[in-house]
Amino acid sequence: MRIRPVKIDTYRENIVFLRKDCDLCRAQGFAALSKVEVASNGRSLVAVLHVTDEPFLAKGEVGLCEYAFQQLGVPAGAEARVRHLDPVRSVDLVRKKLHGEVLDQEAYRRIIRDIVENRYSKVELTAFVIGCAQGFMDREEIFYLSRAMVEQGQRLDWGQEMVVDKHCIGGIPGNRTTMVVVPIVAAYGLTIPKTSSRSITSPAGTADTMEVLANVDLTLEDLRRIVKAEGGCLAWGGSFALSPADDIIIAVERPLNIDAVGQMIASILSKKQAAGSTHVLIDIPVGPTAKVTTMAHATALKKLFEYVGEKMGMTVEVVATDGRQPVGRGIGPVLEVRDVMAVLSNAPDAPADLREKCLDLAGRILDFAPALRGGHGRRIAERILHSGEAFEKMRRIVEAQGARAPREPGPITREALASSTGTVLAIDNHELAACAKLAGAPVDQGAGLDLLKKVGDRVLSGEPLFRIHAEETADMGFAWDYWTRHPEMVEIG
Amino acid sequence: MRIRPVKIDTYRENIVFLRKDCDLCRAQGFAALSKVEVASNGRSLVAVLHVTDEPFLAKGEVGLCEYAFQQLGVPAGAEARVRHLDPVRSVDLVRKKLHGEVLDQEAYRRIIRDIVENRYSKVELTAFVIGCAQGFMDREEIFYLSRAMVEQGQRLDWGQEMVVDKHCIGGIPGNRTTMVVVPIVAAYGLTIPKTSSRSITSPAGTADTMEVLANVDLTLEDLRRIVKAEGGCLAWGGSFALSPADDIIIAVERPLNIDAVGQMIASILSKKQAAGSTHVLIDIPVGPTAKVTTMAHATALKKLFEYVGEKMGMTVEVVATDGRQPVGRGIGPVLEVRDVMAVLSNAPDAPADLREKCLDLAGRILDFAPALRGGHGRRIAERILHSGEAFEKMRRIVEAQGARAPREPGPITREALASSTGTVLAIDNHELAACAKLAGAPVDQGAGLDLLKKVGDRVLSGEPLFRIHAEETADMGFAWDYWTRHPEMVEIG
Repeated sequence: MRIRPVKIDTYRENIVFLRKDCDLCRAQGFAALSKVEVASNGRSLVAVLHVTDEPFLAKGEVGLCEYAFQQLGVPAGAEARVRHLDPVRSVDLVRKKLHGEVLDQEAYRRIIRDIVENRYSKVELTAFVIGCAQGFMDREEIFYLSRAMVEQGQRLDWGQEMVVDKHCIGGIPGNRTTMVVVPIVAAYGLTIPKTSSRSITSPAGTADTMEVLANVDLTLEDLRRIVKAEGGCLAWGGSFALSPADDIIIAVERPLNIDAVGQMIASILSKKQAAGSTHVLIDIPVGPTAKVTTMAHATALKKLFEYVGEKMGMTVEVVATDGRQPVGRGIGPVLEVRDVMAVLSNAPDAPADLREKCLDLAGRILDFAPALRGGHGRRIAERILHSGEAFEKMRRIVEAQGARAPREPGPITREALASSTGTVLAIDNHELAACAKLAGAPVDQGAGLDLLKKVGDRVLSGEPLFRIHAEETADMGFAWDYWTRHPEMVEIG
Repeated sequence: MRIRPVKIDTYRENIVFLRKDCDLCRAQGFAALSKVEVASNGRSLVAVLHVTDEPFLAKGEVGLCEYAFQQLGVPAGAEARVRHLDPVRSVDLVRKKLHGEVLDQEAYRRIIRDIVENRYSKVELTAFVIGCAQGFMDREEIFYLSRAMVEQGQRLDWGQEMVVDKHCIGGIPGNRTTMVVVPIVAAYGLTIPKTSSRSITSPAGTADTMEVLANVDLTLEDLRRIVKAEGGCLAWGGSFALSPADDIIIAVERPLNIDAVGQMIASILSKKQAAGSTHVLIDIPVGPTAKVTTMAHATALKKLFEYVGEKMGMTVEVVATDGRQPVGRGIGPVLEVRDVMAVLSNAPDAPADLREKCLDLAGRILDFAPALRGGHGRRIAERILHSGEAFEKMRRIVEAQGARAPREPGPITREALASSTGTVLAIDNHELAACAKLAGAPVDQGAGLDLLKKVGDRVLSGEPLFRIHAEETADMGFAWDYWTRHPEMVEIG
């Protein structure tokens, strides 16, 4: 058969299309949703079959969705062979896991290998993620899973004894500390080749926010050159295949939204090790609408991170931080860049909470440096920020990655007003994030929310609580509608 | 937007297609794999979004896959509105179930209602099925689930005090007892409106096999008329929406292939109650390659069936049967029809194991009749079979449903030979089924296997063990190849 790319975006699911009347469907009893293997030019992939009568396929053609076409990497029109996939044997191990068995290193290797080869369907991936959910996976297994994930991806080597990194488990809008921490740490002289993700369900990821200022889609050669020259970078991690298993698992994990602790730890630590990091600081925000709601849970997580990190041969430090509300004022790429640059340039109106958190985290990372006396890191971080060295380092990183034209916040604005007088008691991270997304973030870089009041602030009835920015009138309508239906997102009492 | 049917078969998944450049994708940030609600002419459905650049969609069109188009039931070109779906709240209950909580009747109602309305994605359905898997669901919950499933479907009423039925939990190739039991029981005078499924993963379901002889895709009026006249029928149950939730869940449950006992019991008993049955016999084959491998497991299942059945107000009897090997000789629709008709016509070469099993099961069902002394059923069943009354009843049912032209077994044949002399020690149900499917069953009605030796038979090296029948040369190749790679499917020692 001949390969025909079909422009359908299936979000990381390999789908192939065959005509209902093709010989293969008839002779081999291929049925919709079967798993099939497509082989061409010595390459192959596993895909889910959709059977079609649409005229977009000619006789003798096999259609590949965009993702599958990219994965296979052969030209349109290439000869291909399609065949039934043998049952994936490692799925038996997933069933064992679901029945409460403890799996060994080899089992995790086999599962992760099959996942990376796209042999797992969404249903099987879901079963794996649930099998790895809290309570079912012991700490040794988390280590096995982490190691298997590292083995199955690309691994970067910086030729240095110490490579530092940071990671936040997420969930707090506006929490853009990385863009301040990296320039401070790099200005001190440590190596911090930071790769970040784009938003999947949040109003902005670090890669989305950095992209307002500079190109983040770097080649490996760019990355090496910039880190060599500047000690740090702020790149999108997606193109380096550091943990290809994780990139696949995430497609079912996010919508599932269950507490898969082992999976999360393995995902984070495997990516850090694959990125060549030796010393890693993990930020766990704690608060009623954060991912982690109690200090007891944060402590349990911390111990797991430390245990698995040590077995992997990394130094992992974990800090629990204040996750009761967004950090800084802006939520959305352009608005967050504004906060970050205010902190880096020591602007008097820079959000104090963002600045303090960045200094704390940068200080903890600097404390990894053997030359520093324990606990001196925070003071050094302050010195580097105040002296303008961090700002200058950020300027150089932006220039090295390729600076972009400045962007303004979305021009369509509307203010959400307090309906009573009192004190702001709580702010709901989830609802603020949802509202900012409806306003257009992160796709529209200027869209989002600007928080004008934070927890503890006094507010008068009729005073603005936050300002919505949008780039399209329709989006402002969606965000405004959400706010009017969820006035509890800022609680006043 | 205007509705455009897109001829893509997604096997019971609602998929809608929007152009990448449509206003909705741009303004509302619709992304691939989002869940959306499509509303038109006062009807609506929930679907997964695929974003496309293919020219099969014009501007202003929303594409619906075949399944979604049928579900929505409005004409092509109808005006439709597409919007983001609010999060499905009952998924929180599924998460609770996954974390080990016991759910109440109202929780199961909400979950099943959302599933029937197609609000669950494949990932969420998988989470539900795993949550219901063995060890997580108590017997009260199985009852709640069963009742919720009955409430959400169509329910048949035969206006009779006693309506009998039988069901086998499956897994044994060739086990076509229903086609003998129904005519015996109906000939006695009990009402047995049997609806069966088509094969999903097996080489033949009862509906596939009956379809060789007669039309099985009956309207509800046909069904009523035939049952009134003959006391029984052998119809395909798929068109009566007896348990629409089950029809949806099965799409993830089959590929998952985990031991979801609660789900299985609820699925079976809810369908029986919806079909109007009052007395049900459940057949649980036990054997090393059957679904149930130990008598202890069969007994546990039996107790659960009885408990839940009683709470639902049905009389449920459970028998454990010999599941060590296929029943009868033929595997595949035409070959199984040959065995069934041999038993019904009292042919001297009819497979004895199939005949005995059918008489046992029919006897147990006849024992439900209040007029019969306990334990006399089996003798009555024998009398009805031997007298030719059962054969005559089958002839009348076939005629009432619409008889079909006789079919011959697949003309391309090849015999699998014993590689050593000895006794047949074991036959692998799974592997025989896989081989029969590769030969083309059930799509090619004449394809399948004809077992020439059974467990306990003496066999000489070079003697045929079974004959493969196919209708296409390519299929014979696939089945033969499978046999050569799995010679252990018939163990000789």
